[in-house]
Amino acid sequence: MLSKNPKDSFVIMNEIVLPNDTNTFGNLMGGRLMYWMDIAASMVATEHSNLPCMTASVDNISFKTPVKLGNIVHIEARMTRAFNTSMEIRIQVWGQDNLEQYKYESNGAYFTFVALDQNNRPCKVPQLIPESEEEKADYVAALRRRQLRLILAGKMLPQDADELKALFLPLKEI
Amino acid sequence: MLSKNPKDSFVIMNEIVLPNDTNTFGNLMGGRLMYWMDIAASMVATEHSNLPCMTASVDNISFKTPVKLGNIVHIEARMTRAFNTSMEIRIQVWGQDNLEQYKYESNGAYFTFVALDQNNRPCKVPQLIPESEEEKADYVAALRRRQLRLILAGKMLPQDADELKALFLPLKEI
Amino acid sequence: MLSKNPKDSFVIMNEIVLPNDTNTFGNLMGGRLMYWMDIAASMVATEHSNLPCMTASVDNISFKTPVKLGNIVHIEARMTRAFNTSMEIRIQVWGQDNLEQYKYESNGAYFTFVALDQNNRPCKVPQLIPESEEEKADYVAALRRRQLRLILAGKMLPQDADELKALFLPLKEI
Amino acid sequence: MLSKNPKDSFVIMNEIVLPNDTNTFGNLMGGRLMYWMDIAASMVATEHSNLPCMTASVDNISFKTPVKLGNIVHIEARMTRAFNTSMEIRIQVWGQDNLEQYKYESNGAYFTFVALDQNNRPCKVPQLIPESEEEKADYVAALRRRQLRLILAGKMLPQDADELKALFLPLKEI
Amino acid sequence: MLSKNPKDSFVIMNEIVLPNDTNTFGNLMGGRLMYWMDIAASMVATEHSNLPCMTASVDNISFKTPVKLGNIVHIEARMTRAFNTSMEIRIQVWGQDNLEQYKYESNGAYFTFVALDQNNRPCKVPQLIPESEEEKADYVAALRRRQLRLILAGKMLPQDADELKALFLPLKEI
Amino acid sequence: MLSKNPKDSFVIMNEIVLPNDTNTFGNLMGGRLMYWMDIAASMVATEHSNLPCMTASVDNISFKTPVKLGNIVHIEARMTRAFNTSMEIRIQVWGQDNLEQYKYESNGAYFTFVALDQNNRPCKVPQLIPESEEEKADYVAALRRRQLRLILAGKMLPQDADELKALFLPLKEI
Repeated sequence: MLSKNPKDSFVIMNEIVLPNDTNTFGNLMGGRLMYWMDIAASMVATEHSNLPCMTASVDNISFKTPVKLGNIVHIEARMTRAFNTSMEIRIQVWGQDNLEQYKYESNGAYFTFVALDQNNRPCKVPQLIPESEEEKADYVAALRRRQLRLILAGKMLPQDADELKALFLPLKEI
Repeated sequence: MLSKNPKDSFVIMNEIVLPNDTNTFGNLMGGRLMYWMDIAASMVATEHSNLPCMTASVDNISFKTPVKLGNIVHIEARMTRAFNTSMEIRIQVWGQDNLEQYKYESNGAYFTFVALDQNNRPCKVPQLIPESEEEKADYVAALRRRQLRLILAGKMLPQDADELKALFLPLKEI
Repeated sequence: MLSKNPKDSFVIMNEIVLPNDTNTFGNLMGGRLMYWMDIAASMVATEHSNLPCMTASVDNISFKTPVKLGNIVHIEARMTRAFNTSMEIRIQVWGQDNLEQYKYESNGAYFTFVALDQNNRPCKVPQLIPESEEEKADYVAALRRRQLRLILAGKMLPQDADELKALFLPLKEI
Repeated sequence: MLSKNPKDSFVIMNEIVLPNDTNTFGNLMGGRLMYWMDIAASMVATEHSNLPCMTASVDNISFKTPVKLGNIVHIEARMTRAFNTSMEIRIQVWGQDNLEQYKYESNGAYFTFVALDQNNRPCKVPQLIPESEEEKADYVAALRRRQLRLILAGKMLPQDADELKALFLPLKEI
Repeated sequence: MLSKNPKDSFVIMNEIVLPNDTNTFGNLMGGRLMYWMDIAASMVATEHSNLPCMTASVDNISFKTPVKLGNIVHIEARMTRAFNTSMEIRIQVWGQDNLEQYKYESNGAYFTFVALDQNNRPCKVPQLIPESEEEKADYVAALRRRQLRLILAGKMLPQDADELKALFLPLKEI
Repeated sequence: MLSKNPKDSFVIMNEIVLPNDTNTFGNLMGGRLMYWMDIAASMVATEHSNLPCMTASVDNISFKTPVKLGNIVHIEARMTRAFNTSMEIRIQVWGQDNLEQYKYESNGAYFTFVALDQNNRPCKVPQLIPESEEEKADYVAALRRRQLRLILAGKMLPQDADELKALFLPLKEI
């Protein structure tokens, strides 16, 4: 099984915010954005694994600047690390106002997908080889995020989370 | 400003999983489910605050049993704690197969909404008074979840997170 | 085959009225509401019968207060009587304005669903045992509504509709 | 104010049944069909009155042959009578299977719409002059249907429903 | 195989322009209109051929008057010529403002569909016999449009396009 | 007014083909694809002009390989030439099957958008400076395509279409 690079499965998505996507403020609803983020992440997961994949978990999402009606939602999805049968994908979202000519960070999150075989059982996926400095940092930090996920899901005891201790160091690089 | 109880804004939602909601396995897509969870949470937030509200953050979501095409998605949304201008809402999701006659836990998450005034600035909301034992436990644990959120969003240093230290005690009650 | 109670299949649905659901007044379109009512009724029918079901008829619907854009549509669906292979379900709809803090009756209707077996033929369903006074009244009046339905569908002669004669008595309890 | 003929506002609608419109049998859901019927009726109402209109009531609908996935839904909507501020519209629905080459009656109903002025108050509409024999019969029977609607809505006492007594004569022409 | 007339497969479609169908001007988006035009054309193609059909090409579309939010889109689709396995269908679109009481030409186009057999191979379709003068003119001009299509798709050399030379004569009748 | 390069407004869009996007073959419907192409083109037009824009015309589209259910639709949209108030945008579409691991050309087209000012009148847009060889070829050929459009729309006499005569030379570069 060949290993792959993050750019092999990198996905860009652009959507226009239409009336039905907005709340009473005329801003994109959080749920609608999460729907698009999940679609983008699932494209990355199937492109890396060449297998059908399903969402396993989504990390904490913090919504910063809301995206306005008529603006463009620009989503970039890039795989950060492949584990045995699961894959972590980083999603970054920008809003883009073409009339006022500015682009603004909206939010971001890490999605985890698991690949499945024909019997719907988890299936081994190719390894990911990070290339750029940013990709390498994301690759290393993925272990810590994974331990936090396992603890939050009740599948790991905090005292066993060696990597997670780094969480209590300054967090800028996350 | 009156305080309110969790049951004052408790919301139940039921949806049928239609073909367009499913991935290639015939299971509900994670993104579609998050869309519904956000809608349910936003109903709770506006019902508690009587103000327009927007999604501020979503905690880690772990997807357990997938919901099948044609099954019912049953969502319960209940406020767990009101802070100054933000509100934490707990979402629980079950799948329900009426033909095979079983109901199964699908996933759950904590959403945070912020209430806004007419100038779109954060606005004070009524306090929440928990009543049942479960509500009280959720209310207390909300502080810890909030600290984790602030750390993950880079707004708090881990060493200042007094409540979060409890995270490193056994976590069953979260 | 076990009999069941109305509360065994009682369904609550909550939806937010989005822009595409509204007419030029910014009010929920009648057709969109009927779509949701039908979904709610079909959940009740499959939950009671544990069989696939399809809409057989809908009784006269009178639209009272329109539901506004951004308001919540609150639907309650409860089975009123099971016949041999068909089931009558009562739908009640309220609008809810969380900002102005009032709730208003929107409309209501009786839907009839028929359960089908694997060959798509009508299939026997469990009996329904009403419990509360309201449920019992609904159960009794179901016979009259059924006769009116059969007459309107041209399947019964009016002179044979013994129960329907009660229709010409004061009708408040319907 | 000019009077108009039924053909002045006659509307034809054709839709293809897509996967999301179907229930677990692969048949068009009743609620989806009612949505389309309401859209068709609203076009007739605005075309006759040249005013914004909203659904006031829908008469008993009996679903006959279900329409299959991929089939065409053919809807015809024709005004049957204009009252002071309300209009009765007859909807007829056929399914059409182009591959198997047959067309089948699906269902039908009478919708009532009310026209509104700029202050959202009921507003006088032009009279309708029926032309063909079928239109004239529909025009006459509209009075009876209206009395039944008023009784079912609790707005008329059955003993005052002179026209409705015809309901207890043979009903073929309805 | 029987031949058919244009009126045997003539299709009328009416849609209301809802908020999600519009751009930032409150006008129907071009892409949404093309979606409806394609649906209308596909109904004509399957009705003429009694076979499953797929879009093969769409001729140049020029958008004239935009259709406004809340207006009706009125589409007429009529077959103009059947070739061996493909069919040309003419789509004409009008906007209709029922409140302001005017109807305006929106745009038009020629769609080409191909019929397929059970193995998804192109399949012979019945001939089309035009009847009215307009249908006959459309039938004759179809050859020229076909040559232009073939040239634009790179499947025919311009110098072989005998019929297309007529394109350089005055074009009013196209 | 500054001139811009094609890469300043280049847009990538990725979508998954869901059940409701497909015809009876399980292939993406032509109309659904044209809807996405129009969205992609409109993003390019507003990004280049920083003005609201509307679809003016779409050139001949020839559908090659159909895109299958569950496959990814990959769309690239790049401006080819800016005229006075209108802009020509080239759309290229690929299907991508991540499980079978192949990517295939689906179709392509040239869209023309016009920019509008606050009074909805055509408004001058920045010039486009092509950079790569392919962009330059597209820029030159745009004149010919424009003449063909004007002739097909009846706004230019063929004998005045000097550039179009090149159409009757070998066409590979179009």
